[in-house]
Amino acid sequence: MKYSIIVVGDELLIGQVVDTNSGWIARHLRPYGWTAQSVKVVADDAHEITRAIDQAFADTDVVLMTGGLGPTKDDITKATLCRYFGGEMVLSEATLRNVEEVLGKRGLQMNPLNHNQAMVPSSCQVIQNTVGTAPLMWFERDGKVLVSMPGVPFETEAMMRSAVIPKLVKHFMSDVEVEYRTFVVIDFSESVLALTLAQFEEQMPDFVHLAYLPKPGIIRLRLSGIHADKAVLTQAMDSLEAQLCELLGKHIIAKADKMPAEILGDLLRERGLTVSTAESCTGGNVAHTITAIAGSSQYFIGSVVSYCNEVKMNVLGVEREVLDTVGAVSEPTVKQMSQGVARLLGTDCAMATSGIAGPGGAVPGKPVGTVWMAAKYGDRLVTDCRQFPGDRARVIDRATTHVTLMLIKLLLDE
Amino acid sequence: MKYSIIVVGDELLIGQVVDTNSGWIARHLRPYGWTAQSVKVVADDAHEITRAIDQAFADTDVVLMTGGLGPTKDDITKATLCRYFGGEMVLSEATLRNVEEVLGKRGLQMNPLNHNQAMVPSSCQVIQNTVGTAPLMWFERDGKVLVSMPGVPFETEAMMRSAVIPKLVKHFMSDVEVEYRTFVVIDFSESVLALTLAQFEEQMPDFVHLAYLPKPGIIRLRLSGIHADKAVLTQAMDSLEAQLCELLGKHIIAKADKMPAEILGDLLRERGLTVSTAESCTGGNVAHTITAIAGSSQYFIGSVVSYCNEVKMNVLGVEREVLDTVGAVSEPTVKQMSQGVARLLGTDCAMATSGIAGPGGAVPGKPVGTVWMAAKYGDRLVTDCRQFPGDRARVIDRATTHVTLMLIKLLLDE
Repeated sequence: MKYSIIVVGDELLIGQVVDTNSGWIARHLRPYGWTAQSVKVVADDAHEITRAIDQAFADTDVVLMTGGLGPTKDDITKATLCRYFGGEMVLSEATLRNVEEVLGKRGLQMNPLNHNQAMVPSSCQVIQNTVGTAPLMWFERDGKVLVSMPGVPFETEAMMRSAVIPKLVKHFMSDVEVEYRTFVVIDFSESVLALTLAQFEEQMPDFVHLAYLPKPGIIRLRLSGIHADKAVLTQAMDSLEAQLCELLGKHIIAKADKMPAEILGDLLRERGLTVSTAESCTGGNVAHTITAIAGSSQYFIGSVVSYCNEVKMNVLGVEREVLDTVGAVSEPTVKQMSQGVARLLGTDCAMATSGIAGPGGAVPGKPVGTVWMAAKYGDRLVTDCRQFPGDRARVIDRATTHVTLMLIKLLLDE
Repeated sequence: MKYSIIVVGDELLIGQVVDTNSGWIARHLRPYGWTAQSVKVVADDAHEITRAIDQAFADTDVVLMTGGLGPTKDDITKATLCRYFGGEMVLSEATLRNVEEVLGKRGLQMNPLNHNQAMVPSSCQVIQNTVGTAPLMWFERDGKVLVSMPGVPFETEAMMRSAVIPKLVKHFMSDVEVEYRTFVVIDFSESVLALTLAQFEEQMPDFVHLAYLPKPGIIRLRLSGIHADKAVLTQAMDSLEAQLCELLGKHIIAKADKMPAEILGDLLRERGLTVSTAESCTGGNVAHTITAIAGSSQYFIGSVVSYCNEVKMNVLGVEREVLDTVGAVSEPTVKQMSQGVARLLGTDCAMATSGIAGPGGAVPGKPVGTVWMAAKYGDRLVTDCRQFPGDRARVIDRATTHVTLMLIKLLLDE
């Protein structure tokens, strides 16, 4: 089943906001075998919105729209939908009560603009927004469906989960089986991995597709199969998975679409180990990435972000002599930082980073992007130095991923 | 000047990757008065790509494409462009040398797939990719231009800056003046702000548009004006800015499109102050958000992420009695955390957070989303407790923004 996504908003076309809704929708409709035909981002403009709907309905029977529903003047989606599907704008009492209730939970009073939000096209079924004030609208015409949802990601996500996905699945039943398997591969460039898998790909059945999804530091391989017969599909996928594991061995660090911090979390939890971080150039991002995962308090104890040398010495116990001679961006420093934080916070494992994220701070022999990293598990301690390309954000991200992969490998190498 | 963006990639349509390129491009072409007409995301499929180009050329004279150029099999953009613009695939010696050089810098050898990357349509001008192996391609036909760029954000951004934007500006000169002014507003809901500004908006000249761009915790107001006469435009914008400042007073915390951490950084740097953070539920995200900004080492000293009570007591000096009686998620705890980290790291200012990011961890009277926060500047210390809605990531983000705004207000209130 194919569907189209239309994202409405001037703010997206000038880049002031990034559209994350379409990705979220696509990810969450995949398990039902639904694939987006296209995503189109258009301006808050009646003509553009109308044209996008025409095109989308020409391609697919389902159109999911987000955005253009806020209380302020620059939103004209609702009026456009009313003209497109016919009827007139009417006050929905149920919506009015819902808006009042949502505002009440936030300790806010109704105002005239909120009142307008309860005006809806008579041609739609309203889906009450339980987490915001803009109502969702479900339109049907000639067997086709358009759902209009708010632009705020949190609201779209909550309402897709609780109402829109169940309603779509009930309305359109799919009779094709779909299976996805994702593998996280490390220490390969994309082209070398493709060469390694060339013969494997030649022999894949027609109904399975292999995609390379590189992220900094890792490549995710995704096998996707579509077949009418579930048993045939699963058998083929099992066989392909076994071949991939045989070919790539311990380059595969996870058989799921997981990010390094999740993979590390799984390993630590399974083994009952704890971890801490001592961060200079990553500035707390390693800790943030770990604690972004629910349940991380089981294994994550804490972190010391030591952005200046005094903190490295006074809190983490890095020797002044080391800092005075080889400097903060050095192997001895990250060694002592990882040892210091593991001692201070009493953890089994530790990670440490010290480098030059840029754009300033380069010194002779240590260009921007130079990062020393250490990973420690019990008595074993590994260090590595890299020169990561790119801007500040990229260097911080790459160092975060790399030091996490260092600890994962240390744990897997036992 | 309007242009179209086409983003190619199956991985975007299943939501495995989020498109950040289109936003980046839009943001960086705005200063030249260029606006995206639409963004279309399509599959790695010759028919879909061709159709998208046809549509884009029907709307605009410039089409910017990203993605679909990697070395692996699932990329077919280049062949499609060759069929679309005519000619044949030829080996570009200059591209071959460039690919070799880029790989050499990474310590990698050329392989057959990289060799294929040097094959380009004879109908294009190649723009050598100085930071990756996929060449950029510039096509012209009937006064229209299509530029094909890699999908890796880092490569697209670097090459847009160094080559594509200068080439576009040289090719198409714009004769309209464009001015944008952005204001960061706090402590307003979108609808109340809209009511407050209703009369202001009525009186705005036709050539100026006001947009509301809410982000969690803040609303950015953007005035955009387009006019042939620069003097007229600037005078109108100056007058509107003065009116906005008069109407909103200290609700405006910055007159620039800046995030709270940047606004805080500016204030600290101007006043020669230092800051540290003590984080529980935000897990290092406040420190990460501050250190994501270049030059933050001037005012950011460090952070202690105290994810368990022992760290709160042993490192930050929170009293055991406080934790045993009112618990970690409490006003006395965040007070003592902020005082403890300011003392430990010797900083003028400090921020602290302790809460329940969820999905687990709720206790009676403290539901998921409950966060206590403290901001300290010298002897002044403010605390606040909020119940943030949403999932774990949203609670962490909201708490990060909120505690940052607390310290900004404390500094501005002097």
